[in-house]
Amino acid sequence: MKTRRRTPAGAADAFGREVLAALDGRAPLEIIERDDGFIEAHDGAAAYFAPHPRWPACERRAIRLARGRVLDVGSGAGRVALHLQGRGLEVTAIDNSPLALEVCRRRGVKRTVLRPIEEVGRFPDGTFDTVVLFGNNLGLLGGRAKARRLLRVLRRICRDGALILAGTLDPHATEDPVHLAYHRRNLRRGRMAGQVRIRVRFRDAAGPWFDYLFLSRGELRSLLAGTGWRVRRTFGGKGPHYVAVLEGE
Amino acid sequence: MKTRRRTPAGAADAFGREVLAALDGRAPLEIIERDDGFIEAHDGAAAYFAPHPRWPACERRAIRLARGRVLDVGSGAGRVALHLQGRGLEVTAIDNSPLALEVCRRRGVKRTVLRPIEEVGRFPDGTFDTVVLFGNNLGLLGGRAKARRLLRVLRRICRDGALILAGTLDPHATEDPVHLAYHRRNLRRGRMAGQVRIRVRFRDAAGPWFDYLFLSRGELRSLLAGTGWRVRRTFGGKGPHYVAVLEGE
Repeated sequence: MKTRRRTPAGAADAFGREVLAALDGRAPLEIIERDDGFIEAHDGAAAYFAPHPRWPACERRAIRLARGRVLDVGSGAGRVALHLQGRGLEVTAIDNSPLALEVCRRRGVKRTVLRPIEEVGRFPDGTFDTVVLFGNNLGLLGGRAKARRLLRVLRRICRDGALILAGTLDPHATEDPVHLAYHRRNLRRGRMAGQVRIRVRFRDAAGPWFDYLFLSRGELRSLLAGTGWRVRRTFGGKGPHYVAVLEGE
Repeated sequence: MKTRRRTPAGAADAFGREVLAALDGRAPLEIIERDDGFIEAHDGAAAYFAPHPRWPACERRAIRLARGRVLDVGSGAGRVALHLQGRGLEVTAIDNSPLALEVCRRRGVKRTVLRPIEEVGRFPDGTFDTVVLFGNNLGLLGGRAKARRLLRVLRRICRDGALILAGTLDPHATEDPVHLAYHRRNLRRGRMAGQVRIRVRFRDAAGPWFDYLFLSRGELRSLLAGTGWRVRRTFGGKGPHYVAVLEGE
């Protein structure tokens, strides 16, 4: 299973190239293709660079809970890591995109590790006090079984009392028939409704296909059962986007 | 050979859906995919609606030469037809996108015909005084042989003294190695360097692949030999974009 930021040897680091182009001031549009042929462009690249005041309100509220040693998963252009470093926290930024980590370093992120979320178990037990999955990166948990496996691993590499701050959006908050048909197709195949299979395209580069998970608060609660985590609270807003604060059971 | 606006039965009118979404105020980004896998998004949809003052300078200068009965080829959202109607000219707008023509009609274009450029020969001989191919629609001529064939047909359906106002851009005005490699690939295959094979993608719709031709002033002059047309002048600017004014020989 691949994640957005995983770039196996030979595959194009489309995401990293996009972020690097944005660092160079070229304001690229982000193009995401889904495996049903749905494709959309948006100015997402800019969001990876957004300073704290321009984050979504639910992220700004949730990030106050970050403390101690922090693992920033899917760090992108480093916006979360830079903010937390500025608050004096010790942050380890991981991403599977070599170029995205290059951007993080150029922007001042001190501690970067090229590591996909699938390999977070390589960190020693009890290392982190906070795990941040912003920019919808709860999605990097991929799907039901993989998410439950990774959540148990995260429990092990976290200290007691640690928190996970994880953003996603409720995929059911749509009336779009194209998306609703995609959800039904997923369910027929035993996948979660909002388990999208997507890839990043950037100019002549196409990243690998990977599963990215969107789920409602209810689906999240079901998913967590038995993983050692529960929902302490969520921060939401008017739209479908929300941040869940997970704590150990 | 398909053109951008051709929508054979069963193929998705991706372009028309994009233009219709723009009419509905959804400000879609246009996504164009090339057959080497290169893909790019831009806010092109808005350009199809631009009122005359916001056209490129070379188009604004060239359009002054329009007169008499005008054929607007690849009319898109109707910006050219609406401008010329406002000047009192009689304009026939053709496009191969049913939805784009629907947008033209809703915006007030009086005379629309669902017809790809390949079928302009269906107009009676000596019908038009001006043919407009703006928004790079010289590209609809497709490739060397097809362009020469279509130019002879245009000569026949035009009156003596008619003009073609045709926009394109010089594909060689780039240092981008991806584009330069694509040009070399084209030349190896006997195609013109700037003969791009592309398709429009919009949400879950992918239009048919079609050839779209970009060519320099020099390449245009070579292409015209023996077609009954010659370059009277060109309007250019700082960038690679220019409008050629063609007159009968």
